[in-house]
Amino acid sequence: MKGFVVRFEPDGKKLKADSESTVLDLAKEGGIGIRSECGGKGKCGKCRIVVEDQQNLSEVNETEREHLTPQEIGRGYRLACMTTVLGDSLVFIPSESRLSVRRIQIRGMEQPVKLDPNVRKICLVLEKPTLQNPVADDLNILTNLEKLYGLRGLEWEYELVKNLPDTIRDGNWKVTVTLLNDHKVIDLEPGDTTSRNFGFAVDIGTSKIVGYLTNLSSGEVVGFGSLENPQIAFGEDILSRISYAEESLEKRRRLQILAVEGINRIIQMACGEAGVNPSEIYELTVVGNTAMFSLFLGIQTKYLHLAPYVPGVKGPVVVKAQELGININPRASIYALPNIAGYVGADAVGDVLATNIYEMDEMCLLVDVGTNGEVFVGNKEDIVSCSCAAGPAFEGVHIQHGMKAVSGAIERIEISPKTFEVKYLTVDGAKPVGICGSGIIDAVAEMFKCGIISERGKFNDVDTPRMIRVEGKPEFVIAWKEETALGKNITVSLKDIEEVQLAKAAIHTGCVILMEKKAVTEDDIDRVFIAGAFGNYINPESAKFLGLIPDIPTEKITFAGNTALAGAKMALLSREVRKTAQRLSRWIRYVELMAEPNFQREFVKSTLIPYRHLERYPSVKKYLEKHR
Amino acid sequence: MKGFVVRFEPDGKKLKADSESTVLDLAKEGGIGIRSECGGKGKCGKCRIVVEDQQNLSEVNETEREHLTPQEIGRGYRLACMTTVLGDSLVFIPSESRLSVRRIQIRGMEQPVKLDPNVRKICLVLEKPTLQNPVADDLNILTNLEKLYGLRGLEWEYELVKNLPDTIRDGNWKVTVTLLNDHKVIDLEPGDTTSRNFGFAVDIGTSKIVGYLTNLSSGEVVGFGSLENPQIAFGEDILSRISYAEESLEKRRRLQILAVEGINRIIQMACGEAGVNPSEIYELTVVGNTAMFSLFLGIQTKYLHLAPYVPGVKGPVVVKAQELGININPRASIYALPNIAGYVGADAVGDVLATNIYEMDEMCLLVDVGTNGEVFVGNKEDIVSCSCAAGPAFEGVHIQHGMKAVSGAIERIEISPKTFEVKYLTVDGAKPVGICGSGIIDAVAEMFKCGIISERGKFNDVDTPRMIRVEGKPEFVIAWKEETALGKNITVSLKDIEEVQLAKAAIHTGCVILMEKKAVTEDDIDRVFIAGAFGNYINPESAKFLGLIPDIPTEKITFAGNTALAGAKMALLSREVRKTAQRLSRWIRYVELMAEPNFQREFVKSTLIPYRHLERYPSVKKYLEKHR
Repeated sequence: MKGFVVRFEPDGKKLKADSESTVLDLAKEGGIGIRSECGGKGKCGKCRIVVEDQQNLSEVNETEREHLTPQEIGRGYRLACMTTVLGDSLVFIPSESRLSVRRIQIRGMEQPVKLDPNVRKICLVLEKPTLQNPVADDLNILTNLEKLYGLRGLEWEYELVKNLPDTIRDGNWKVTVTLLNDHKVIDLEPGDTTSRNFGFAVDIGTSKIVGYLTNLSSGEVVGFGSLENPQIAFGEDILSRISYAEESLEKRRRLQILAVEGINRIIQMACGEAGVNPSEIYELTVVGNTAMFSLFLGIQTKYLHLAPYVPGVKGPVVVKAQELGININPRASIYALPNIAGYVGADAVGDVLATNIYEMDEMCLLVDVGTNGEVFVGNKEDIVSCSCAAGPAFEGVHIQHGMKAVSGAIERIEISPKTFEVKYLTVDGAKPVGICGSGIIDAVAEMFKCGIISERGKFNDVDTPRMIRVEGKPEFVIAWKEETALGKNITVSLKDIEEVQLAKAAIHTGCVILMEKKAVTEDDIDRVFIAGAFGNYINPESAKFLGLIPDIPTEKITFAGNTALAGAKMALLSREVRKTAQRLSRWIRYVELMAEPNFQREFVKSTLIPYRHLERYPSVKKYLEKHR
Repeated sequence: MKGFVVRFEPDGKKLKADSESTVLDLAKEGGIGIRSECGGKGKCGKCRIVVEDQQNLSEVNETEREHLTPQEIGRGYRLACMTTVLGDSLVFIPSESRLSVRRIQIRGMEQPVKLDPNVRKICLVLEKPTLQNPVADDLNILTNLEKLYGLRGLEWEYELVKNLPDTIRDGNWKVTVTLLNDHKVIDLEPGDTTSRNFGFAVDIGTSKIVGYLTNLSSGEVVGFGSLENPQIAFGEDILSRISYAEESLEKRRRLQILAVEGINRIIQMACGEAGVNPSEIYELTVVGNTAMFSLFLGIQTKYLHLAPYVPGVKGPVVVKAQELGININPRASIYALPNIAGYVGADAVGDVLATNIYEMDEMCLLVDVGTNGEVFVGNKEDIVSCSCAAGPAFEGVHIQHGMKAVSGAIERIEISPKTFEVKYLTVDGAKPVGICGSGIIDAVAEMFKCGIISERGKFNDVDTPRMIRVEGKPEFVIAWKEETALGKNITVSLKDIEEVQLAKAAIHTGCVILMEKKAVTEDDIDRVFIAGAFGNYINPESAKFLGLIPDIPTEKITFAGNTALAGAKMALLSREVRKTAQRLSRWIRYVELMAEPNFQREFVKSTLIPYRHLERYPSVKKYLEKHR
């Protein structure tokens, strides 16, 4: 195998290659983020690269010609997944192909908890043994803990036992004991270290990992970290990752290591920020959807996507940091919160904890919008839940000009009903590059509101230069090429609208079927919570005009933000919350939509904008009657 | 460094050497057992080897000349610890220098226990999940265990969780769950394996490791194993081993590994015998004196032999088999029973458990005779204990012709009070090689009984050819050279008698001081238990004539055998016993003899045979009045 060097710009990274690697493989191996929503199969066309001198690359193939115009090919554009390196080369990754750091909703609504963490530190001043009272060193500690704190039946982490006699003498008979759940001694340090007791709460999202570093003595958040989920290199969506994991034990292990490394990196970020040594972190609580939970823990995922879609392991799972390779105190505990069902994960338990709907008298609707959406209807009496395969449209995937909420993404759109002129806002106010989830929701909702598209999502015959035809098909221009960073029109196509319809239908169907299960109507719903890392940025009016959520007065709607992480943090601070999480994971009823007889019919009705029966959307009906 | 080869016979083993190794070092490295009671310091003179062609050896040194006669040197005898190898050589190890397999007392008195082991196996037949009831695989198991067995709050060993979904399906929805203490799931197997549930009980003695393989479903012993403690290569007594361990962490680790390997070997023996796969062993209970406990667990032993002699770790210590490298099921639990004090270990807890003195109304005296003796006085109301540094005389060390109870050891001696003729019995009926502990006790007791020696241990002027002089000093011949395997007289010297006096005085002092503590006399003692791996072979009359134990009627004396191991087995079979062990380890009072004001005075009185005040030995007094 002949070896040569590929330089990646603007990173300036040089990587060694052989004649069997594609540019995408190479970039993955080198930790360079290139978008590849389809996992490198030539389907998404997102992994565009530019190579000026192509003499050392494979020829442009048919797949590339489908995704790239002859002009682009002339300018050196290629698809990274289709391009094999045959000699030294220089590859440029344009901004639209980069996996850049996204704007991520970290904070979320949360409930105040009584501080009662699973880890506590106690400083003891021991009496020295004498010939008359030759008390054993371990017993010296245990009897003090019993006498002063009423703690009995404690167990030692074996590793501590070995040097226990030295540790006590190093501290001149003053030691600090770290206890897990008032039951297991997980650290023993000379002197008084009681002020150094930290925990970490993590949300492993399909696309991002976010975490809080928390002082367990005060409950205060002292640092945070966030990162693109490194597993993304093996597919943006859950299914491609779990398919990959099933190919071999080694691949399952690789995805696990990626998650662990990602968590290690955000721990490092947060610790650096806060001046905390990772060995001072004694517990990590983790939420994630069932697939992320499984991949992080290295659990077999095969049965997650075979009927009846059972989660192999519902959890909770408790494991020592050392066993997983999490770089905190090696004897620290990892507590992975329990899941509810195959596609309603521990992150959803976090949503319920943080919004507190399980303690409310009011009837609540909770929607976590994401690639995999979760819906809950209920209150303290009973809660039903379901999972909705919305797909990644709201993450910008399968949308022609879709992108994540990184710099340059159009996130807000308003269309004038009279002139059809478009106003938009972008992330960071940068020149537009594409449209992110909230923008695409606005776009379709506004187009419907202005009569540009019909309830079926087809273009009406409207007179505006923004209606253009590309390869004979109609598209609506959101941003003219002169305004954009790429020099190309940013448009919405019929196919884009269809993707949005399918995605919103999935979530809406969940809402409707759960409301039916609970025998409630829109009028009975007292509160609506919209959660999710990007939930804060959705315009509620657009969500209703689109028919993403039921027509419930806006004043009843709360945007809850990243409640999954908030739930993980609550579980970090309170053992009571943890018990509640376990209870909720079993108590919340799960409805398998696929098994519902009216699922198909309801789904079809929900693909219409906002819905087949306009009576169900009185606010939309009223607007249309007034404005059309 | 020049390399060459040394061949050891009769083993036939060839080992590579360099010019810095002594023959003893080389043998140790090669796993060839050569006696070295002093640890290779040239003090004990036991590591005798024979080398015919000595041209490739270091010169005979002064130390060797002290231990070897000129005739022996002429015949090629050397001390292995003093002999450096300088070239290819052939070394012969004579039988008296070999660490051969000893006769070991395995069985001991034990109490019947209600079978309630810490490990149990349950077979479950699960219902398959359906779309209507998509129960998670882990919850499927847990709810069955809760419903059918009332088991709640179970935790999983993390490793099992990963393949749980596959395991269930491999068994076609029939699985066997292995539970530790009805709390932690430590194994999950497809199908029904409930009949394969084993445990192992081990006694780590200073000189030997013995163990029982037990079926935890029936309580039946199905195999056993025993082995010289491999740590013996680093010193026969506790002190030389813990001194070695303190030299560096690496040396501490080496001794730990030796203990672990020794245990692994006896597990293998027992499993082979019983047709059990070591992975079917789910728990190991361990007893040993505090030093063996500490060395096995890799615990810092430095403070064990510094006043106030505290055990760094009293225990119990629980640790996963995998963490220690014990080759049984990797998730099995090692339970090291708790110690009482620095020199009253978990083996002594085993003695108390197996003899049951803690539940008795009768006043009991329990003596475990060993290098480190333990004495207990008490009953269910209260028990006091102490440790007696008897030293290794009863193991044959520091006795000119002393040896362990291996083939050829004289174990019983009778001397005619009229003719001074000697009758003896040897282990295996082989030609005599030396005298073991029970033999040496008999010898000194009989010599006193017949008036050959005085109460002070000095030779009286008796007329028998057996009184000979060696280098001007008197010795009493037990076996004439014509009768022995070595062609040398086997004798008892003044120094030997002195060693026995010191050893027996140590134990006797313990008995007397504890009886004082309890304010009881010999008349108040209802029962005497003599425990220890070689306790069964002591003649109780000799023990009393010698003044090893107080003068209590023989019918009150029970030889209890290896009660330490019996106690470990009881703890393996019953969780209740384990609780009792923990309670006993704290409840039994420990008396530090060194801190007793009358220790010295009492010790001096106890060196006399049988004791300074003959009134305290009425049976001996009566015999002497009658026969002298």
